[in-house]
Amino acid sequence: MTGTSLPLQSSDPLITPTDRTSALEPDGADTDALYHRLFETRQLSSDLAAPLSNEDQTVQASDDASPTKWHLAHTTWFFESFLLEPHLPDYRRYSDAFEYCFNSYYEAKGDRHPRASRGLLTRPSAGEVRSYRAHVDQALKDLGQREEGQIDAVKELVELGINHEQQHQELILTDILALFAAQPLRPAYIADQDRSTQNTDSQNSTRPAAFVPFDGGIYAVGHDGSGFSYDNESPRHDTLVRPFRLANRLVTNAEWMAFMDDGGYTDHRHWLADGWAWLKQHSIDAPGYFEKCDDDRRQMTLHGLIKLDPAAPVTHVSYYEADAYAKWAGKRLPTETEWEIATSKARLSEPNTLATRSFKPLPAPLARPGLIDQMFGDVWEWTSSSYSAYPGYRAPDGAVGEYNGKFMCSQQVLRGASCATAPNHTRATYRNFFYPHQRWQFMGLRLAEDA
Amino acid sequence: MTGTSLPLQSSDPLITPTDRTSALEPDGADTDALYHRLFETRQLSSDLAAPLSNEDQTVQASDDASPTKWHLAHTTWFFESFLLEPHLPDYRRYSDAFEYCFNSYYEAKGDRHPRASRGLLTRPSAGEVRSYRAHVDQALKDLGQREEGQIDAVKELVELGINHEQQHQELILTDILALFAAQPLRPAYIADQDRSTQNTDSQNSTRPAAFVPFDGGIYAVGHDGSGFSYDNESPRHDTLVRPFRLANRLVTNAEWMAFMDDGGYTDHRHWLADGWAWLKQHSIDAPGYFEKCDDDRRQMTLHGLIKLDPAAPVTHVSYYEADAYAKWAGKRLPTETEWEIATSKARLSEPNTLATRSFKPLPAPLARPGLIDQMFGDVWEWTSSSYSAYPGYRAPDGAVGEYNGKFMCSQQVLRGASCATAPNHTRATYRNFFYPHQRWQFMGLRLAEDA
Amino acid sequence: MTGTSLPLQSSDPLITPTDRTSALEPDGADTDALYHRLFETRQLSSDLAAPLSNEDQTVQASDDASPTKWHLAHTTWFFESFLLEPHLPDYRRYSDAFEYCFNSYYEAKGDRHPRASRGLLTRPSAGEVRSYRAHVDQALKDLGQREEGQIDAVKELVELGINHEQQHQELILTDILALFAAQPLRPAYIADQDRSTQNTDSQNSTRPAAFVPFDGGIYAVGHDGSGFSYDNESPRHDTLVRPFRLANRLVTNAEWMAFMDDGGYTDHRHWLADGWAWLKQHSIDAPGYFEKCDDDRRQMTLHGLIKLDPAAPVTHVSYYEADAYAKWAGKRLPTETEWEIATSKARLSEPNTLATRSFKPLPAPLARPGLIDQMFGDVWEWTSSSYSAYPGYRAPDGAVGEYNGKFMCSQQVLRGASCATAPNHTRATYRNFFYPHQRWQFMGLRLAEDA
Amino acid sequence: MTGTSLPLQSSDPLITPTDRTSALEPDGADTDALYHRLFETRQLSSDLAAPLSNEDQTVQASDDASPTKWHLAHTTWFFESFLLEPHLPDYRRYSDAFEYCFNSYYEAKGDRHPRASRGLLTRPSAGEVRSYRAHVDQALKDLGQREEGQIDAVKELVELGINHEQQHQELILTDILALFAAQPLRPAYIADQDRSTQNTDSQNSTRPAAFVPFDGGIYAVGHDGSGFSYDNESPRHDTLVRPFRLANRLVTNAEWMAFMDDGGYTDHRHWLADGWAWLKQHSIDAPGYFEKCDDDRRQMTLHGLIKLDPAAPVTHVSYYEADAYAKWAGKRLPTETEWEIATSKARLSEPNTLATRSFKPLPAPLARPGLIDQMFGDVWEWTSSSYSAYPGYRAPDGAVGEYNGKFMCSQQVLRGASCATAPNHTRATYRNFFYPHQRWQFMGLRLAEDA
Repeated sequence: MTGTSLPLQSSDPLITPTDRTSALEPDGADTDALYHRLFETRQLSSDLAAPLSNEDQTVQASDDASPTKWHLAHTTWFFESFLLEPHLPDYRRYSDAFEYCFNSYYEAKGDRHPRASRGLLTRPSAGEVRSYRAHVDQALKDLGQREEGQIDAVKELVELGINHEQQHQELILTDILALFAAQPLRPAYIADQDRSTQNTDSQNSTRPAAFVPFDGGIYAVGHDGSGFSYDNESPRHDTLVRPFRLANRLVTNAEWMAFMDDGGYTDHRHWLADGWAWLKQHSIDAPGYFEKCDDDRRQMTLHGLIKLDPAAPVTHVSYYEADAYAKWAGKRLPTETEWEIATSKARLSEPNTLATRSFKPLPAPLARPGLIDQMFGDVWEWTSSSYSAYPGYRAPDGAVGEYNGKFMCSQQVLRGASCATAPNHTRATYRNFFYPHQRWQFMGLRLAEDA
Repeated sequence: MTGTSLPLQSSDPLITPTDRTSALEPDGADTDALYHRLFETRQLSSDLAAPLSNEDQTVQASDDASPTKWHLAHTTWFFESFLLEPHLPDYRRYSDAFEYCFNSYYEAKGDRHPRASRGLLTRPSAGEVRSYRAHVDQALKDLGQREEGQIDAVKELVELGINHEQQHQELILTDILALFAAQPLRPAYIADQDRSTQNTDSQNSTRPAAFVPFDGGIYAVGHDGSGFSYDNESPRHDTLVRPFRLANRLVTNAEWMAFMDDGGYTDHRHWLADGWAWLKQHSIDAPGYFEKCDDDRRQMTLHGLIKLDPAAPVTHVSYYEADAYAKWAGKRLPTETEWEIATSKARLSEPNTLATRSFKPLPAPLARPGLIDQMFGDVWEWTSSSYSAYPGYRAPDGAVGEYNGKFMCSQQVLRGASCATAPNHTRATYRNFFYPHQRWQFMGLRLAEDA
Repeated sequence: MTGTSLPLQSSDPLITPTDRTSALEPDGADTDALYHRLFETRQLSSDLAAPLSNEDQTVQASDDASPTKWHLAHTTWFFESFLLEPHLPDYRRYSDAFEYCFNSYYEAKGDRHPRASRGLLTRPSAGEVRSYRAHVDQALKDLGQREEGQIDAVKELVELGINHEQQHQELILTDILALFAAQPLRPAYIADQDRSTQNTDSQNSTRPAAFVPFDGGIYAVGHDGSGFSYDNESPRHDTLVRPFRLANRLVTNAEWMAFMDDGGYTDHRHWLADGWAWLKQHSIDAPGYFEKCDDDRRQMTLHGLIKLDPAAPVTHVSYYEADAYAKWAGKRLPTETEWEIATSKARLSEPNTLATRSFKPLPAPLARPGLIDQMFGDVWEWTSSSYSAYPGYRAPDGAVGEYNGKFMCSQQVLRGASCATAPNHTRATYRNFFYPHQRWQFMGLRLAEDA
Repeated sequence: MTGTSLPLQSSDPLITPTDRTSALEPDGADTDALYHRLFETRQLSSDLAAPLSNEDQTVQASDDASPTKWHLAHTTWFFESFLLEPHLPDYRRYSDAFEYCFNSYYEAKGDRHPRASRGLLTRPSAGEVRSYRAHVDQALKDLGQREEGQIDAVKELVELGINHEQQHQELILTDILALFAAQPLRPAYIADQDRSTQNTDSQNSTRPAAFVPFDGGIYAVGHDGSGFSYDNESPRHDTLVRPFRLANRLVTNAEWMAFMDDGGYTDHRHWLADGWAWLKQHSIDAPGYFEKCDDDRRQMTLHGLIKLDPAAPVTHVSYYEADAYAKWAGKRLPTETEWEIATSKARLSEPNTLATRSFKPLPAPLARPGLIDQMFGDVWEWTSSSYSAYPGYRAPDGAVGEYNGKFMCSQQVLRGASCATAPNHTRATYRNFFYPHQRWQFMGLRLAEDA
């Protein structure tokens, strides 16, 4: 690989949005469709809360997590603060106190209720938050029915609000899992409808992953501007990559158990220094939500406490664990650039929809040579890239500018999408990011190696 | 030195239960009355929870406090574990998992849910806890209807369970106050019906407290065995006391504000070393739940955020604060022995009942010479006595023995009863105890001095 | 109830200072003797530091402990601040900065170096602290040679300074032990000269302790004003005591090992709730400085790491441990009053002197019927009494008033004196006090029981 | 810029080691020269400790810092463990216990004394550590005199040991500064010999920095294998860079004070979220070691507490502060790649030597157009690059492999060298790394911008 012969590839089909993701992208031209998606999204949040009692919606499982009720109110406050108040004349705030209660981290918006105390908010009640949502939804409808000119001015904010709410839908699910895992009664968020485990080709799950090769060269990565994206996905820019190979599937529970059985959690040689200290301090010896029941390994999931599926991707592992596993396996994690490039060979499964999805990672599919499975919809994939600004990045002005830029330190990028990611909220350029010790999201890994 | 010629003084009229407290004591002979009180008590707990949403009942305001739902379930578990299971043949536990969820601190009863995580329990729901209570109440009724012989064996446990539940009724109220004070919306637990503030004789509230004298000598203190008491109130024993004087009323908010205005919180000379460190660490400069609104001082109460009543006793002060105030005032706190002796001159007000009480300390009444006001029903009164065993005390065997004895270290005794204390749950010998930094209970002080 | 007919008993022979303690008390009349003792005491501090390198003298073993150098400087600062500056005209401070460096906790003396950072002070050097001591000693000599009138005014402060420095001599020893126990090289502070272990009557050490009876009655306790004492030992006052029995010797290592072998550290029933939490948090399963070397139990001492002597009193146990042991043994700890009364039957051994003492608790001596051994000079003895003010106590004005009074909360009283206590610094009324979790002092216990 | 026309540039003169750095590199062929440098380096460590008392050498200023004595012993242990024991037959360890005491973080070498407790080690004494050094130096001499064949096998380890000890020489200086800054007496490590401040061209210091342009394209970065380097500087690899401009000098104290005066520490908009939380938690409002004395700004330095030099580069700023400053200035920090490329235009000053250097950053020199000043020898420069592996990097096997790789998470790269860096220990490819909150090293910043 020299890199010299490669043309600029900003229109390279390799990283053209795939069929699937292009299907998911809004065209941005059709206002009706935009508002349709808006209210679909708003409805989905309510649907996600439906199986929960008011109590379930109120409690905060940990400092990382937030109560369902808070998510429902905060996403509503987001529309109220950034869209309705500035752009809908005569809009009347539902409650002045909610500004304080439901601002997440926007310093520009003033003081706010401390993050770690979100679970103290029994008032407003879950019922009142539902009224709050109805009040704002009605105003959003009013806004949507105003003449075109005005609407155009706010379309971008509507789109941002949809995507913002979709992010919180994923958090609702992961935070409920954290809460239910802390219940001695081990409740299920949703009953396990007709699990497909039995359909798993067990031979497949024990077959080693294949490594799909990619050429080195200069690739353009980052969002190309068509459809919605976050500021941190831009600017699209060239990057020089060496030849590499990427595993055609995620690391499975069966493989992780081999790591555990081989003393993976007790051999310092696999671990980053920070990871080893974290492991010692918290007595970590398995992924999150793993439990040992006699001879059995189980895992707490949104479907309750279930037998571990060996063919399913391992999930709820921290970056430290993912990195240690990769070293133990004699491989490495991919960079975020490699991952994005590799989406050109992704085999996409049916998009997850609320109706069909199982809220847990699916077993490994039968591989098709040269294609890469499970890139979207199972688990977020840790990459070896720390989260930082793309060349030329500049955060937008104002409170919206706090959305992504101020977190560009000490976090790692994850790519893909998980089983809890809202439908239509996936794309090849999406950059998720968390601290290396965090693992309450659906986080797993895929191996890479130098070619 | 002889000591041998002194008679035991267990019938000393000075410390005979007063009219009021004797009226409050069960005679212990009438089983019907006992069970009547039992179900009244059980009903009162439910009534206390009635103004609360399921969410309010679920959240834990701090590590000190517990959720209402937990109190409702724990008191029920207490009857189930100590009374029904051992003594009602064929009794079927409502749920095995509740043993783990609702044990408070009885090591003898096995592992239990961590105290600081009680607020995570969204399951069982508040509704299911109500079913749990109904299940156990029915079993208690069955037990009450069994023939005499069997019943006698358990009467003591019924009485203990009543008193235990009454303690938790007080905690329900103080813990709800802690929760509501943490709400940005500052809700009221109960509307302020016909506050008696306006009736206050304002002259009275500014009149200095009078100090009522008591002779020195040998007094018997501790419970004499008639009616219910806790193990820590026994054995009744002689104690030698020097002449002293006790203030005829509690320290008021007006007096406390004079302390504050005189730099009480910034002059180290008034403070215990531990108290000074506590004050610095937590930036304490006023009693708990005090707020400054412009020029106004307000206080968060169970009736919401209200204007501070100068004539009402100061409350939500720690032992450190109470001790500092006393030093500033040139006085001291009474010992618990002095306090108990002084009940002989207590002027008792009408007993608090659920119907009449205001859930906040009442303004200082008009004094009557030689009598002592506000000994029961306003605030618990810090004493200078650390909580320790009476001479000859021995903790009962078994889990019930963990009730009081294992806390006899590093805590201070408080005497009296507060506006949140359950009716009929007061007596002259009652020993309440908390750590010197705690102040989320209704805690105040009364001054004493050497004669 | 009268109490009025009882005579004051301040001259009761039972609590008259014993032969030994009276011999130790200064007569206070002889100025030459006072100054002789002063310079003897000053010299002893220097002698205690002599076996230490400058480095040993500089480092702080823990937040509880202080560096030797700091003790040497602080005791010097004490004389400078309370004695020389106010009372020696033209006295020139050695260094203004030392006020900040070497004030311990006197808020009245202004800001000071944080306690936990005393070990950061490499400057002034140990050598310069020695110069500081010489400077102040010279000024003290000047003061001692002034005419009588002036001297009388300061005698009390000289006496206080001597006693203060003696307290710090004990701390020098315990803090050096803490430091040396943290050294991987396990150094000895002083070589083990001719240990007396071999002389132990081994039969004696396995013979059960005898319990010496005492009558109940009214006793006067507290200091009677002859000779030096601290403010917290006064006022002498009557107290009413029930008949009790006190063990004629301390609890031994052999007995403690029986407690350990019987699961003493794993059975919650013996423990105070705070103690059980402390034990769990710090993984406590043996007294401080105990080590297990193969099948051997050893203990780090000022003589290095030595084999545990079964007949020696157990030491470096916290109040929690002492209380748990007593409960396990079916006994209790004495109150401080009982302990003080019992000194009337103390059998005193030869006073420890720097020349003779071994800096470790001696094996139990052969008992003599009716007498109580080991009350002074082996280990401080935990009592069940929390540290609080005697009736009528009032802290002195000014900085000296911070000496004792501000610590009267959450600590327990210990009585006696340890092998590290400076010679001549013991008396029956002395009240030592520490928090219940602390155990870096030479702390042990003696059992009591109701008669 | 397209990047397509650029050849691989592994021999690109732009990043050829500069005159200065090549002069500093060992040729590797001359064994005598190698051993000469070895003993020079060993001697320098001793020289650095010479102005310190034994006490200064023993105390640990903070968890980040280590005692001088520990550095002196640890570097000696490094030679003993990795070089002498494996390669010098019949080598006798100085002390087995030192393995435990002076291992820093090599898990492969077994248990070790906890990092935060290094300051507890008063034994071995500073004197004994000097003996230890002499013992090991003698053995190193023996090793150096053995016949060629054997020596060749260990040359790489000698070189590694030299570089390792040079790193610790810098830490000795920064850790002594941390210690002396914690002394109330504010000592100077070394007297301020003939400060060059007066020579500063004050016009120069107020002249804005110029931005030197660099073309985009593919550059090879990383070490080319000639001379010593650490594993983390390899493999040398191509990287694609966009056109950029780099400031020709460091940010000065005068510029930083403008930031402070403009509310830089109180406006959240400049700050990373983690940085804002850090600033709030630790009440940060100025660089480390800054002090306000009346109207004056001073800084604690190795020359004592001195008046802040406006023309000197700001130092002791964290990554959070550096990033906030850059945002406030409308610029950004350079990437580590940009910085390395820019060394091609570095104007090098005279190498620092122990004899000439001042142990503090020098004032900004007069700029020469198109050249970049102060790249080596003043302060380490924060880059926007997080510390991670170069493409193809693989940690060496064994304990030496723990040297760099296991820290590749959550840290930021700094480039250059500081006034405390040992002479001859600088090169263009050197990658230093620290956590974003750390600032006890000599850390500053240089601005960059997109071209």
